[in-house]
Amino acid sequence: MSSSIKQPNAITCKAAVAWGAGEAMVMQEVEVSPPHPQEIRIKVVTTSLCRSDLSALDSHAIFPRIFGHEASGIVESIGKGVTEFQEGDHVLTVFTGECKTCRQCMSGKSNMCQVLGLERRGVMHSDQGTRFSINGKPVYHYCAVSSFSEYTVVHTGCAVKVSSAAPLEKICLLSCGLAAGLGAAWNVADISKGSTVVIFGLGTVGLSVAQGARIRGASQIIGVDTNPEKCDKAKDFGITEFINPNDCNEPIQQVIKRITDGGADYSFECIGDTGMITTALQSCCDGWGLTVTLGVPKVKPEVTAHYGLFLSGRTLKGSLFGGWKPKSDLPSLVDMYMNKEIQIDEFITHNLPFEEINKAFELMREGKCLRCVIHMPK
Amino acid sequence: MSSSIKQPNAITCKAAVAWGAGEAMVMQEVEVSPPHPQEIRIKVVTTSLCRSDLSALDSHAIFPRIFGHEASGIVESIGKGVTEFQEGDHVLTVFTGECKTCRQCMSGKSNMCQVLGLERRGVMHSDQGTRFSINGKPVYHYCAVSSFSEYTVVHTGCAVKVSSAAPLEKICLLSCGLAAGLGAAWNVADISKGSTVVIFGLGTVGLSVAQGARIRGASQIIGVDTNPEKCDKAKDFGITEFINPNDCNEPIQQVIKRITDGGADYSFECIGDTGMITTALQSCCDGWGLTVTLGVPKVKPEVTAHYGLFLSGRTLKGSLFGGWKPKSDLPSLVDMYMNKEIQIDEFITHNLPFEEINKAFELMREGKCLRCVIHMPK
Repeated sequence: MSSSIKQPNAITCKAAVAWGAGEAMVMQEVEVSPPHPQEIRIKVVTTSLCRSDLSALDSHAIFPRIFGHEASGIVESIGKGVTEFQEGDHVLTVFTGECKTCRQCMSGKSNMCQVLGLERRGVMHSDQGTRFSINGKPVYHYCAVSSFSEYTVVHTGCAVKVSSAAPLEKICLLSCGLAAGLGAAWNVADISKGSTVVIFGLGTVGLSVAQGARIRGASQIIGVDTNPEKCDKAKDFGITEFINPNDCNEPIQQVIKRITDGGADYSFECIGDTGMITTALQSCCDGWGLTVTLGVPKVKPEVTAHYGLFLSGRTLKGSLFGGWKPKSDLPSLVDMYMNKEIQIDEFITHNLPFEEINKAFELMREGKCLRCVIHMPK
Repeated sequence: MSSSIKQPNAITCKAAVAWGAGEAMVMQEVEVSPPHPQEIRIKVVTTSLCRSDLSALDSHAIFPRIFGHEASGIVESIGKGVTEFQEGDHVLTVFTGECKTCRQCMSGKSNMCQVLGLERRGVMHSDQGTRFSINGKPVYHYCAVSSFSEYTVVHTGCAVKVSSAAPLEKICLLSCGLAAGLGAAWNVADISKGSTVVIFGLGTVGLSVAQGARIRGASQIIGVDTNPEKCDKAKDFGITEFINPNDCNEPIQQVIKRITDGGADYSFECIGDTGMITTALQSCCDGWGLTVTLGVPKVKPEVTAHYGLFLSGRTLKGSLFGGWKPKSDLPSLVDMYMNKEIQIDEFITHNLPFEEINKAFELMREGKCLRCVIHMPK
């Protein structure tokens, strides 16, 4: 490979910089350094908004920062020692990486990479530094991706090469939410044909669980959401019964137990509410009921449940990115989309140009979108 | 079968009757009614003490009552319609039955029989009545077994026919604690060869988990108990490292994480302490760590754990009677004992005649015994 000889320069480009919790991001110029060894610089093509971006913007203490983690792009340049990628490769970014060498990656049963796992401090894995700056002062990363910028730098373990035939403006959704839901249904719960499923929270993740359950042949897929507008859309993804807890005169778990003849085989908590994890456990059947929790709680981080729920045969399991090992597994999901085996387009309710990114955040705050895809300037 | 023609009479015999919480039981005569349809009357041969008996004696509100649920005996008479048993059959009693017809029994993946599951009200499943009385006044059952009596009546679904070649005074331990531990290791956790295991609480259940783990070929079996006397005995059952939390200068989960290189593959809570369930989760590794809870908490019934423990790949699962379907599965455990594939004898630290049953309870209160087998008069 001759590419390692080339010395890429810093790039100055537009980014949406967050300066404070809950504040609108500021579209301004940032400097993006060249990729370090084992890193690549990506020209972001599209980035979709995930609720985690919003939660992080509203709460995280590290500023200034560039959010965004669900994205697609094209490799612009590569760092020293990079042989896996070359300029022009189409990629998806991933917020949890895969080093392929640690105990977790080598286990064959986990995606909790010990080297490139969830990065919370806003810096790069390799040197704990940033690749963004404004007037020489660091601007922090988010989840090792930071795709709300025309260019970004990621570790090679946090990028996945995909077929150049796949439309980047659609498959960017596989970078986080959609894959998280499908994987929870397939890898973590391993939903079986004819089973009953209940899903709490019908955002993109919850509806992706529904899609996964439908593809597995679940006979009953109950969706629970307090937003009545979710009802119609939900049916497109396989929800067979929609329940709005606000319309119920009894606790939701009792309603579910009744309509599933004793409780669902599987329940999924896709809201990020630890109280709802308890309800999800209570909505499962004795003996083999499995509750999968996918959400990241914003308030009370403690799960509380009566021991009897477990003693009577229930299981509680967590799911991060649906158990997918991103580099090993994402290309096959892209193939499934290209073969029309999974739906992506239907999740995209809005498209906006990059300069209107704050409007996209408003749409999400108001619960008006599933996925809003942000298109970077060409 | 001609046996259904016979009309058995009531029997008057000795029983250890509990009259109040925490009080010594009183050895006195009770009347044991003939078995009703689908019931059998058993001449109890041996009954071993399980901690649940002690916990129930100390706390349950239903008195007068006859405790005891881990027992072996010989069928004395059968009720109408009983074809599965006949007089003279050797049996084990079980506290959770198997009707073989309900959704749970038919599922092939649960032992949570909906018809003959855990009976908490002290009555028979069929008519909510008792089969014991003193001067015509009812004496309540315990867990559908009540083996602290020379004779008892149980539903056919709560008795398991076993080989008459098997020594009843040993295999009675399979009726509850020993099977519970082995099943948690084999059926619920499905421990794999070479894995690391940590067990909280080294009573009969915990040490049975250890035995199960050793038989599966676990490479490291860490036992945690605050009673230093457990150390030597524990090694007989496969414990490779004994840890007394009182000897540690740091939280026990940190000690375990260090000696297992990041956390155990499996952890088992065998104490009945919901706080320890959290510690057991924390002692497991990211990615695939599985915590199995077997204990029945006496104090705080709520399990509390940070959601991050689940999101990073841990699973919490409950185990009642080790997932065994009692009637379907117990005979094979008896066979394993006869073939010297599992140890039972080593759990029996004491043998006492029936009249000294209160002494057996004292031994258990003082933590001086694993299993004390009570021998009924011949």
